[in-house]
Amino acid sequence: MSDIALGCDLTYEITEPTTFLFNLSVAMTDSQKILREQLTVTPQVPMESFQIGLPKNRVQRLHLLPCEFRLQYLATMSLAPQQHSTWQLSEQPYPDLPPEVLPYLNPSRFCESDILGNFAMREFGSLPHGFSRINQICDWIQREIRYEAGSTSAQTTARDVFVQRTGVCRDFAHLAISICRALGIPARYVSGYAVNLFPQDFHGFFEVYLGQRWYLFDATRMAPVSGLVRIATGHDAADVPFATFIGAATLIFKSVWANPIGGQSPGNTGGQDAVSTA
Amino acid sequence: MSDIALGCDLTYEITEPTTFLFNLSVAMTDSQKILREQLTVTPQVPMESFQIGLPKNRVQRLHLLPCEFRLQYLATMSLAPQQHSTWQLSEQPYPDLPPEVLPYLNPSRFCESDILGNFAMREFGSLPHGFSRINQICDWIQREIRYEAGSTSAQTTARDVFVQRTGVCRDFAHLAISICRALGIPARYVSGYAVNLFPQDFHGFFEVYLGQRWYLFDATRMAPVSGLVRIATGHDAADVPFATFIGAATLIFKSVWANPIGGQSPGNTGGQDAVSTA
Amino acid sequence: MSDIALGCDLTYEITEPTTFLFNLSVAMTDSQKILREQLTVTPQVPMESFQIGLPKNRVQRLHLLPCEFRLQYLATMSLAPQQHSTWQLSEQPYPDLPPEVLPYLNPSRFCESDILGNFAMREFGSLPHGFSRINQICDWIQREIRYEAGSTSAQTTARDVFVQRTGVCRDFAHLAISICRALGIPARYVSGYAVNLFPQDFHGFFEVYLGQRWYLFDATRMAPVSGLVRIATGHDAADVPFATFIGAATLIFKSVWANPIGGQSPGNTGGQDAVSTA
Amino acid sequence: MSDIALGCDLTYEITEPTTFLFNLSVAMTDSQKILREQLTVTPQVPMESFQIGLPKNRVQRLHLLPCEFRLQYLATMSLAPQQHSTWQLSEQPYPDLPPEVLPYLNPSRFCESDILGNFAMREFGSLPHGFSRINQICDWIQREIRYEAGSTSAQTTARDVFVQRTGVCRDFAHLAISICRALGIPARYVSGYAVNLFPQDFHGFFEVYLGQRWYLFDATRMAPVSGLVRIATGHDAADVPFATFIGAATLIFKSVWANPIGGQSPGNTGGQDAVSTA
Repeated sequence: MSDIALGCDLTYEITEPTTFLFNLSVAMTDSQKILREQLTVTPQVPMESFQIGLPKNRVQRLHLLPCEFRLQYLATMSLAPQQHSTWQLSEQPYPDLPPEVLPYLNPSRFCESDILGNFAMREFGSLPHGFSRINQICDWIQREIRYEAGSTSAQTTARDVFVQRTGVCRDFAHLAISICRALGIPARYVSGYAVNLFPQDFHGFFEVYLGQRWYLFDATRMAPVSGLVRIATGHDAADVPFATFIGAATLIFKSVWANPIGGQSPGNTGGQDAVSTA
Repeated sequence: MSDIALGCDLTYEITEPTTFLFNLSVAMTDSQKILREQLTVTPQVPMESFQIGLPKNRVQRLHLLPCEFRLQYLATMSLAPQQHSTWQLSEQPYPDLPPEVLPYLNPSRFCESDILGNFAMREFGSLPHGFSRINQICDWIQREIRYEAGSTSAQTTARDVFVQRTGVCRDFAHLAISICRALGIPARYVSGYAVNLFPQDFHGFFEVYLGQRWYLFDATRMAPVSGLVRIATGHDAADVPFATFIGAATLIFKSVWANPIGGQSPGNTGGQDAVSTA
Repeated sequence: MSDIALGCDLTYEITEPTTFLFNLSVAMTDSQKILREQLTVTPQVPMESFQIGLPKNRVQRLHLLPCEFRLQYLATMSLAPQQHSTWQLSEQPYPDLPPEVLPYLNPSRFCESDILGNFAMREFGSLPHGFSRINQICDWIQREIRYEAGSTSAQTTARDVFVQRTGVCRDFAHLAISICRALGIPARYVSGYAVNLFPQDFHGFFEVYLGQRWYLFDATRMAPVSGLVRIATGHDAADVPFATFIGAATLIFKSVWANPIGGQSPGNTGGQDAVSTA
Repeated sequence: MSDIALGCDLTYEITEPTTFLFNLSVAMTDSQKILREQLTVTPQVPMESFQIGLPKNRVQRLHLLPCEFRLQYLATMSLAPQQHSTWQLSEQPYPDLPPEVLPYLNPSRFCESDILGNFAMREFGSLPHGFSRINQICDWIQREIRYEAGSTSAQTTARDVFVQRTGVCRDFAHLAISICRALGIPARYVSGYAVNLFPQDFHGFFEVYLGQRWYLFDATRMAPVSGLVRIATGHDAADVPFATFIGAATLIFKSVWANPIGGQSPGNTGGQDAVSTA
């Protein structure tokens, strides 16, 4: 367990009446206790809060007239992921998967698992099933895809990344998810904060259904899995953008952070333990 | 209200142990009362039934060894769609949309609304909002896309159809959904049966959130909207395939039907009334 | 006839041994007489000159060690395009096209005419053939595609532009070429300079085979056709990049210009006359 | 040297006036002497013969009214490829490549070498340059891409094949060409006949510029390289289709063959000798 201070500070130049959806509050789960939380907007406007998609995706909607708009989110939270020994984490055979995870086998906007099937089967199909296979998928992505800021856009899909061999965190997650689904392993996208991520920013990672539970993975391996904080969960990044708007707005300042309180860093599990916060 | 006898008869040649998911039972909703229903499989094997995705998607899972496998689904049902005068069906402004419909603004596997935004805004952005705008989108698709059996595959997306200008019912629905979402109108895919569809087959159509409710549209206009029977609802066809399997199976016979009982045909609403069964 | 002073001034930061191909010298044709020309490179290195592709594409190859590298090209030339009345410019039927223009009916890297056939035939297939049809293709592109600097990349194709509805000069040309080829009209890409283009830059336009000759068109309509100066001709932009290199170089300064000498501006033909410089 | 009897027999159902281009006559080169050749069409119509593209692409154009149309091509030829020891076949550095081969470094319709660069460099960039590197590219394609008749269409590109991992001969060639170009090695497409190909059909292979010359490779390895007979040469298959038409025609019968005369089969070079017929 570790206590974490996290948040973000965003400023937008708004030039027309604009409605925003923000999806950047920490999800409230058994593993994620919020100790204190504050969302401040300047100018002060009414803000509607609700949940969409998976039960825990907390969304704020607010409407703004032209202005310079600032949103600050500050939270301290206690992160207590379940850690399980990896050797016992088997993949469930298709006939035994619980119905609620089956949708996470379908292809989605950024994860064309239906197209990557031949590759996935040839490269990973004969590996021993279970946690180690997911790790080997991450190994492959690490080795073959270069992390390169700015190399992709909001419309880049797993197929594109597979071809061009560069991407950022969300692309790495999309490719990993696509490969898992193509192998019959339910996989989904998680947006969040990450302790000890450098440079600090929002982060995108993924989780995979093994044994009886969803386990977190970070295909970029840029931050320890035990320090990943969930904001929202979806089929892929299309479901859980940090901010969406209709109108005219330009992001002119962004700062994001997630720091351990008291300096106790989340340890890297070194591939020894699997981490679940779902 | 009309009573309908519908069903399907499918035969697969199965050459390896294979697990199927079938998604072809009529959804049970206020507008769709099932009077009698029978799902028969030969050989007789245990069948697990559950719901996934939206509450009403009924799925059967069954496991088969190599054999010739036959599935027969027979149902009689009473279809009582709500019909509303179209002139009062306005689009809800983005700030007023209820949270549960917001996910149907996101792009999905086969509906790249994020890419078709400029086209949608230029072609349909300045039309009067509401039911008539959706009708004009269907008009445009009717005029510009040629229905051509076999012209697309299971991987064809709305973007592909927009470029190649041919498709089948699911492609027509995907393109219409993409345009609606790009305009800020929640839209989703419905798989189903259709009375008076020729040639008879499973059908794909879509529904759009107008006023306070989801209304059905069929971009192919090959069957009356008031005779559309919902099987399942999803972001797009990726969520609601009639049959999925892992293993090795070949469909060698398919028959699908949906006939009014007693000959009372569902009338074509002639664009006068909007139809809702959600 | 008009005399034109044109050129470019490019500076690269070179950080590894780098070989460049430059393709920015004015083509020498019956319509383009070079009066004076000077290509200066700093530091002075040996430069190899040759022609590739179509007879008139003049290329320079040079090899550089890490340095700040500057290339200046200065030319004065006399531009005497043939101008023909447009009403007599018919399309040649497929059986009558001379063999040497047939390759310009094939799809190419950035011009997927094989995919845009249905659209092209439905939108332009029944228009009267000839010069006016090409003009109507340019009208359509003008109306439907928004010129937006930075909206596309070096890998953007006509198909992409057709979907996203934004692009720059080379994209406009690629889309026009694709539509022409899909209609059975030979079309090819021309890189060049353009008098009275604003903002000044290299330009991309296209030419179409009508009657017995290639005629110039500019789908952007940002500069008069009678002031278009040919550098090179190819299937599409893949054949005639202004600069290519293997190594490591960053363009840190670029200036391009093309100005009438003595102030006699090339007149806009106003759709009255067709212009040929091939 | 071997003598070969080859040809094809095609029948089309023609339902509208149709103009054909055929590109199936053996190229006349120093390595390919035509001993006897006959092209018969039924019904007998005038036939125009010319060359387009590279000097040696022989094309026939003919115009037909609705009918059942049969074309028979029969040739006996002497194939005397140059065979060179492979160890001396180096790649030419970019600054030393002769101008006429430079266009074969550009991306083309079906060979998106500009997109596959990162992959090509990571997978093959550090291998010893020369003949063996091309062989290793073919090894990789053999291992990773499954030959599957009917798995691709006339619009499938190297990128598609790279993702879906299935294809036919032209797809194998396109992927190999793309990788070579991305590595700075000129590569182009060759359509032809192939002795001992099974099942017999037209074939697609490629050639690569090594040392001072173009050498043949067959990424499918379905037939000995020394028995490959060139019809036509192009950037990719878009340049050299066996048959193109404008009109309405359906191929209803096709037979293609290439057999050694007197039974002397072209030996498989076993990777020992490089073969050139350019």
